[in-house]
Amino acid sequence: MTEHQDITALMADIGARAKAAAADLAVASPEAKRAALEAAADAVWDGRAEILAANAKDLAYGRDKGLSEAMMDRLALDESRIKGIVEGLRAVAAQDDPVGEVLAEWDQPTGIHIRRVRTPLGVIGVIYESRPNVTADAGALCLKSGNAVILRGGSESFHSSGAIHACLVAGLRAAGLPEDAIQLVPTRDRAAVQALLTMTDTVDVIVPRGGKGLVGLVQREARVPVFAHLEGIVHIYIDKEADPEKALRVVVNAKTRRTGICGAAECLLIHRDILGTIGQGVVRALLDAGVEVRADETLRAIEGTTAATENDWGCEYLDSIIAAKVVDDLDAAIAHIRRYGSNHTDCIITEDDAAANQFFARLDSAILMRNASTQFADGGEFGMGAEIGIATGKMHARGPVGAAQLTSFKYLVDGDGSTRA
Amino acid sequence: MTEHQDITALMADIGARAKAAAADLAVASPEAKRAALEAAADAVWDGRAEILAANAKDLAYGRDKGLSEAMMDRLALDESRIKGIVEGLRAVAAQDDPVGEVLAEWDQPTGIHIRRVRTPLGVIGVIYESRPNVTADAGALCLKSGNAVILRGGSESFHSSGAIHACLVAGLRAAGLPEDAIQLVPTRDRAAVQALLTMTDTVDVIVPRGGKGLVGLVQREARVPVFAHLEGIVHIYIDKEADPEKALRVVVNAKTRRTGICGAAECLLIHRDILGTIGQGVVRALLDAGVEVRADETLRAIEGTTAATENDWGCEYLDSIIAAKVVDDLDAAIAHIRRYGSNHTDCIITEDDAAANQFFARLDSAILMRNASTQFADGGEFGMGAEIGIATGKMHARGPVGAAQLTSFKYLVDGDGSTRA
Repeated sequence: MTEHQDITALMADIGARAKAAAADLAVASPEAKRAALEAAADAVWDGRAEILAANAKDLAYGRDKGLSEAMMDRLALDESRIKGIVEGLRAVAAQDDPVGEVLAEWDQPTGIHIRRVRTPLGVIGVIYESRPNVTADAGALCLKSGNAVILRGGSESFHSSGAIHACLVAGLRAAGLPEDAIQLVPTRDRAAVQALLTMTDTVDVIVPRGGKGLVGLVQREARVPVFAHLEGIVHIYIDKEADPEKALRVVVNAKTRRTGICGAAECLLIHRDILGTIGQGVVRALLDAGVEVRADETLRAIEGTTAATENDWGCEYLDSIIAAKVVDDLDAAIAHIRRYGSNHTDCIITEDDAAANQFFARLDSAILMRNASTQFADGGEFGMGAEIGIATGKMHARGPVGAAQLTSFKYLVDGDGSTRA
Repeated sequence: MTEHQDITALMADIGARAKAAAADLAVASPEAKRAALEAAADAVWDGRAEILAANAKDLAYGRDKGLSEAMMDRLALDESRIKGIVEGLRAVAAQDDPVGEVLAEWDQPTGIHIRRVRTPLGVIGVIYESRPNVTADAGALCLKSGNAVILRGGSESFHSSGAIHACLVAGLRAAGLPEDAIQLVPTRDRAAVQALLTMTDTVDVIVPRGGKGLVGLVQREARVPVFAHLEGIVHIYIDKEADPEKALRVVVNAKTRRTGICGAAECLLIHRDILGTIGQGVVRALLDAGVEVRADETLRAIEGTTAATENDWGCEYLDSIIAAKVVDDLDAAIAHIRRYGSNHTDCIITEDDAAANQFFARLDSAILMRNASTQFADGGEFGMGAEIGIATGKMHARGPVGAAQLTSFKYLVDGDGSTRA
């Protein structure tokens, strides 16, 4: 067998085991799922030394690979971040169980009674990059929603994800649930991703979280339905009716609070009329905060900026860099975002209700904001508890995806020998 | 250019025009959409002579092709069915407009206010078979939900669909909406379907309605997300605790009321313990009603049955034929449906609550029924008004699909210079 055949056989086996586990999970009790998550949280805390040791290996590998500071920040664990993982697991454990929830019920004049009831999706494949906590979050949310999951973490977080995954399996075992309910692909080989994208017999949906490389691969190769969690090319447009103080506060927070998350601002659009006032002030504040501002020709007049190239529009830096451009009006801002955005999160700073309404109506991002930092694009900040990520597609799930968004539904119809006339 | 290149170019042009129309439609007023549908209804009624003449051409073509009686019934129009189309258009016109509906809204402690608002999907491609009324239903529902639509009807209904489509375009024109909002693919060439399935730049979702041939094509070729409306391999299981009278009434109605619809029963499973009593009675009643019963070895003892072959399990006849089989128990019935069903609609006849609960919990069809005819699997009978069909997939839409299921949503977030801590 070639190596590629090995990987295909490996993935087929993982898929078959996930499908078998999904049948059990779909009828698992809420108590068993909660117990598994609580036990997993205990295992993560008790095993924090092993997890940190595994993470040290990943950090060394990342340093050798020359990862950026922002990427290294996404990868790094410490005791406080492990505590965050433990709390995340406990928070998901404590949530209401979505499976079996009656979403609606009604009687029809023909005498039939109809219930719409929440069901698991089945088997979910999650493809993600370097953040090791996603292993715990995604595993927990899929289990809570009664789905089996196949996790495929980034090669940089290989050891950290493996150590966290072992804790999740310990939780399943403690609760008497099938260990195959949460599987981690045990290889860094990219062929495993390609296999996962085509496993229509065993995988019901793929959640791909990542940047441009993954976008292209998914569009070319996926045969399984996809909840895309792709790039966050987040724009902030400062309208001519912006409040100066709000503009300053929101833009600086949106760019600098944490640069490695998908809700971080990546491109600033400034209305020409307020270029010399609010615009200049905001750009200076970003420069003062240590942000590299890649500016169009007009904004290059501000000292400290560097020249943007065509590649800077629509770029997801995930780093302390922002593209910046002057636009003639709201229409031009909308046109720029339609062309270069990724339908993740986009924001307008304005006191003008009409402008905000236009921005909200004519753009179709999963999240549109007015006078609020794009770093609020997050399941926790939306009040949904843990999230598997921010869905950028329009199918099924959109925006922050929690356990409830990882479900489908079915109709249960009760009659009494009822026939259709 | 080869013929194939011609079709690809034709479809790319249709896609581009649909995408442009979708941008206008997304912000079209509810009044304009309603006016277009009312005008289309008038145009269909005023143009009924032309539609019937077009339908006569299709019926002649279908007769030459040797279509079954059930297929000819699906294809045929008369004045009463045209009246049904007109009423369908008016019913969709009268429905509430789903676009812009606030699905939920709440405040967060950070000071941001979040609204979840219903949005159109964008461009929908509908691939369907011979029923010409689908042209009107699908066109109307997509328009109501603010989506542009590309309709690809079956080759048998080519002329009828064209005549109905002309009326829909007349409605758009009367209301000042873009005529490209509802397009019909003007060729019978199958290459158009293949092109449609891969137009990821312009088409947001494909709704394929059809049988085995279309299933395979979609699984192999689709790059665009799909709301599958595929085969209705509908099973009815008569449990040992069935009420004899209900079993008889429900099964005969489910098979014979109309054989050409996707909710018609195609396979009967009979518990061994009631084979000589209820089972025999139901099979005799089906035979008396003129149904061909393709029976397993045990049921072949009943005079008038014919022998089933392996091909009869999982077959969608859409005709006056039913497969019939004896099973040892509820588990065997569930196993048979899992193996041969299509996740459309399946039914149990029983007075035993525990058996019904097992059937409901362990099967994952879009619609599960107890003591009710599977012919109720219909948007109208569910109280949803018109439907584009019954979705058999689990993503996004499931079961009867009306205008509301053809939408997505986005989050609108209002702050006051709010930043994340």
